Amino acid sequence: MNKFSHLDRNGKARMVDVSGKAVTTREAVARGAISMKKATLALILTNQVAKGDAISTARIAGIMAAKNTPGLIPLCHPLQISSVGIDFYFERKKGQIVIESRVNVTGQTGVEMEALTAVTVAALTIYDMCKAVDKEMVISDIMLVEKRGGKSGVFLRS
Amino acid sequence: MNKFSHLDRNGKARMVDVSGKAVTTREAVARGAISMKKATLALILTNQVAKGDAISTARIAGIMAAKNTPGLIPLCHPLQISSVGIDFYFERKKGQIVIESRVNVTGQTGVEMEALTAVTVAALTIYDMCKAVDKEMVISDIMLVEKRGGKSGVFLRS
Amino acid sequence: MNKFSHLDRNGKARMVDVSGKAVTTREAVARGAISMKKATLALILTNQVAKGDAISTARIAGIMAAKNTPGLIPLCHPLQISSVGIDFYFERKKGQIVIESRVNVTGQTGVEMEALTAVTVAALTIYDMCKAVDKEMVISDIMLVEKRGGKSGVFLRS
Amino acid sequence: MNKFSHLDRNGKARMVDVSGKAVTTREAVARGAISMKKATLALILTNQVAKGDAISTARIAGIMAAKNTPGLIPLCHPLQISSVGIDFYFERKKGQIVIESRVNVTGQTGVEMEALTAVTVAALTIYDMCKAVDKEMVISDIMLVEKRGGKSGVFLRS
Amino acid sequence: MNKFSHLDRNGKARMVDVSGKAVTTREAVARGAISMKKATLALILTNQVAKGDAISTARIAGIMAAKNTPGLIPLCHPLQISSVGIDFYFERKKGQIVIESRVNVTGQTGVEMEALTAVTVAALTIYDMCKAVDKEMVISDIMLVEKRGGKSGVFLRS
Amino acid sequence: MNKFSHLDRNGKARMVDVSGKAVTTREAVARGAISMKKATLALILTNQVAKGDAISTARIAGIMAAKNTPGLIPLCHPLQISSVGIDFYFERKKGQIVIESRVNVTGQTGVEMEALTAVTVAALTIYDMCKAVDKEMVISDIMLVEKRGGKSGVFLRS
Repeated sequence: MNKFSHLDRNGKARMVDVSGKAVTTREAVARGAISMKKATLALILTNQVAKGDAISTARIAGIMAAKNTPGLIPLCHPLQISSVGIDFYFERKKGQIVIESRVNVTGQTGVEMEALTAVTVAALTIYDMCKAVDKEMVISDIMLVEKRGGKSGVFLRS
Repeated sequence: MNKFSHLDRNGKARMVDVSGKAVTTREAVARGAISMKKATLALILTNQVAKGDAISTARIAGIMAAKNTPGLIPLCHPLQISSVGIDFYFERKKGQIVIESRVNVTGQTGVEMEALTAVTVAALTIYDMCKAVDKEMVISDIMLVEKRGGKSGVFLRS
Repeated sequence: MNKFSHLDRNGKARMVDVSGKAVTTREAVARGAISMKKATLALILTNQVAKGDAISTARIAGIMAAKNTPGLIPLCHPLQISSVGIDFYFERKKGQIVIESRVNVTGQTGVEMEALTAVTVAALTIYDMCKAVDKEMVISDIMLVEKRGGKSGVFLRS
Repeated sequence: MNKFSHLDRNGKARMVDVSGKAVTTREAVARGAISMKKATLALILTNQVAKGDAISTARIAGIMAAKNTPGLIPLCHPLQISSVGIDFYFERKKGQIVIESRVNVTGQTGVEMEALTAVTVAALTIYDMCKAVDKEMVISDIMLVEKRGGKSGVFLRS
Repeated sequence: MNKFSHLDRNGKARMVDVSGKAVTTREAVARGAISMKKATLALILTNQVAKGDAISTARIAGIMAAKNTPGLIPLCHPLQISSVGIDFYFERKKGQIVIESRVNVTGQTGVEMEALTAVTVAALTIYDMCKAVDKEMVISDIMLVEKRGGKSGVFLRS
Repeated sequence: MNKFSHLDRNGKARMVDVSGKAVTTREAVARGAISMKKATLALILTNQVAKGDAISTARIAGIMAAKNTPGLIPLCHPLQISSVGIDFYFERKKGQIVIESRVNVTGQTGVEMEALTAVTVAALTIYDMCKAVDKEMVISDIMLVEKRGGKSGVFLRS
């Protein structure tokens, strides 16, 4: 028996039919982190406090990527996202930036992939902006934190 | 003094001028992993051995994302990539798939972001295809492993 | 009298107003074929049976193209497609692969162009993957086979 | 032995490495046709002679699609096309429009796929513009006619 | 107090939540102009009257850009536009082309940005097509003229 | 005689052949302005000084649009831009923001359209972010200011 909805009974990829699903309000929250040298984070924070462009650029990239999710992930459905927001938390002692996205939609399918894509592209953008000073940054712990709406109900990561 | 080449001396974002850089052959290798329940990995491997669509879809998504990197990462330069390849390694005991990408170009700037983007979007695609059976998958350890060519020479992750 | 809805009464291109049309479930089925040397088809089938990447790549390309139809065809409306599936039939004796797509939507306009675009881009992808061994392949017989839903009702190709 | 350059020795898809290929001037010519009721063609020609928007729209769609080829065909290399032109020939007695594209590039890989994509998307656009009056149109005979430049030299379809 | 809905209370960019807004029919009309040497306009009109490709190309570019607005303007919501039309008015004595777009949607947010983007990209396309003969063209007076639907009601530019 | 290089001798649109043109370093500078109520500009400046997201968002949108120019303007050649920078000047007394972009490339064709597109999309983004408080903003005076490199040499707007 095939448990992957994105593969048909012969194991072939397909975009699953959501036409029978209810139109409901759905929300997803995703999180991830990028770790770096403490000196790199200090440079970002200096720039951030004063002018903001490093983090602003990552936020805009993440928001635009959320909208572009069906163009990136082959079997994702096109969606009219209602909102996207991205927050950054700076863990100075750990040399880490935690990124959290929240995406909403009124539609027939969830926005987990949009939330995960937003976090990931925001992290990649930070990598890009800092790679001249620190090539050893690592992006980690990208995960779905929360999901509401739709038939499967509430998911809260344990 | 501003050490981030993507920000000008006032901290504003810019796409840095690469016109003075040499046209050389450049290569980047990136790696990442997606962890899941062992049962989820077993399902993928069953499908993979028999028909291949789950991993094939992730590979194609990663290759297409590598080409689309300048459309995703705001300050990346457009590039005519010479090659992209993505490999998947299955760690059955750890419930993990390791993804490695290798990108080449002959140009004035490196392909680190293309390699990192390929790995990341391949991982997100696996998440998408398996999320109906396992919402707790985690994408981690996305990093640059190797970089060759250009003024900064060889980088090998320690 | 102008019978082309995509041209206004002066013959100028426009995207027609669908706001007065009913939101209904709509479906379109399109078909096409790519003809090649029998030896080329045999090579694809060898790969297909064993590993699947040639046809998998064409299927993913076709699904992604269906989603991108309004970005390709100037006067097509943006749509939230509910599902896309693509099947391949191998006519070994004729040296031909027949490609069939099925697209569904709940919306104010049909998905004929999405189905036709899916078939066409899948065929072009097969051409791309095999052109090193066979440049004389021909893509033909791309047509709408079936259409359901909307004011014009059922269309079945005679 | 694997003869498909787009698949590695394990049959997995990859974007082949063109970095060792010579930068030369390359050209490709592709052709295709769309057949329709004679009355449909007569309507297009009436519009065409007087105002031109039906065919102009198809031409622009084809040119833009040629530029977008690497975004559509998964294993195509990004290219800086030097020129694209598309011609339409009206076969009034056969109820057919023949479409021919010519694409040039100075680069490391050919432009066959760009030429084929231009013809195909131009044909799909004509279908879209006329489908309100004729759903039975058929797109056929999409083929590479001519190819110059690169290691394989001149290809002329027999 | 922050009056910009696109910035949160900390001044950070976000895509505002429209999920609570009513689905209504909305319309926007935008206008703009491109000024040029009278001789340049005369050349366009000569070509336009005879064959139409200069203005047809600008119209198609504007329509496609309207559909692509959420891909261009970072905080715009994805929308399923119901219609787009673009008109061109030739002010021969002033050496000016006035461009007017009208966009409709049934949705939760307005289409001002779609209408403004359509006008702007149409004007840029005219610049591109004529720049070989006139580099001093100026695009001006891009403004919202009319807006209907939604909570804020009718806006008519004074 | 046809003086528009983007139209062939029959007045049909084409992407002109640049393969015979020299690869040189080319630069273009474009400028434009967005006018608004003084109170609107004051709000932007308050946000700008403190946190920067309004202007940062417009800058990122303009840079990404410059890279996307060949996807927007039908007959523009794909290009590997070497750099893009955008500056904003605040004319508080006039209620106006002046936007200036500078784009460089080493290639066979100029970057006027990239510079003009960057300015225009940055202006549209400011409109989008402020339209909740001021719908009467006007985008004007979009023009090419400077152009260097290529056969036609230096252009300086008089």
